[in-house]
Amino acid sequence: MVSKMTSAGPVAAMSERECWAHLASSTLGRLATSVDLQPDVFPVNFVVQNHSIVIRTSEGAKLAGAATNHRVAFEADDHDVAGGWSVVVKGDARILSSIEEVATAERAQVLSWIATPKGRFIRITPTEIAGRTFRFGG
Amino acid sequence: MVSKMTSAGPVAAMSERECWAHLASSTLGRLATSVDLQPDVFPVNFVVQNHSIVIRTSEGAKLAGAATNHRVAFEADDHDVAGGWSVVVKGDARILSSIEEVATAERAQVLSWIATPKGRFIRITPTEIAGRTFRFGG
Repeated sequence: MVSKMTSAGPVAAMSERECWAHLASSTLGRLATSVDLQPDVFPVNFVVQNHSIVIRTSEGAKLAGAATNHRVAFEADDHDVAGGWSVVVKGDARILSSIEEVATAERAQVLSWIATPKGRFIRITPTEIAGRTFRFGG
Repeated sequence: MVSKMTSAGPVAAMSERECWAHLASSTLGRLATSVDLQPDVFPVNFVVQNHSIVIRTSEGAKLAGAATNHRVAFEADDHDVAGGWSVVVKGDARILSSIEEVATAERAQVLSWIATPKGRFIRITPTEIAGRTFRFGG
């Protein structure tokens, strides 16, 4: 990752393919929502499935309400001492309700971040995806 | 942290004082904004100063526009194999412009996450702060 940036300066944009590859390497992201002009942000576990983001959550009413039929942003990142990456997905979030949708999401095997019961899945279908790699220092 | 939760189940709410103490232990957070109904989310370095969040950023126009005179949400979290914590601050963000404001923010010594030039500070004054600790598993 760092070698790619040597000639590109401290920040380099990713291709869409690289964005998905980086997302697939991660399990913890942050979901940003906005209801009545008030943004909110939730740490969530996720998996990539068919170029969409599947989230399993215990944030019952709160997160579900914020994510239902609203535009959302989702971000995942990782870093070490030398540098890191960040990918942001913007898109529409939908609570999965049909048996088929839930079964498909369950096959993605999203781990639950916290040990509370949760059977609720949210799928984010991206309208936009952008990522960058960067190095620290300076 | 985990011991506190033994009797309280997998998730426990923090006091405001605990929220600030956890935030002060962290340097990387995520800032959620919303402009024209589209949420966005940015990884940012921050410090706590006088019960507010100070961010230093290279996201010039993009982040500045999203954060100026808008309500925002800010989240920081950390975890190990056993559990973790997450604190969410909601409030108003403001780009610091006066010499005094910038000097005060500089004293907070916010590290820059990425090696690009940046002299722009944003201060989030909270209207709401909430945190929780949790343990994994189940």
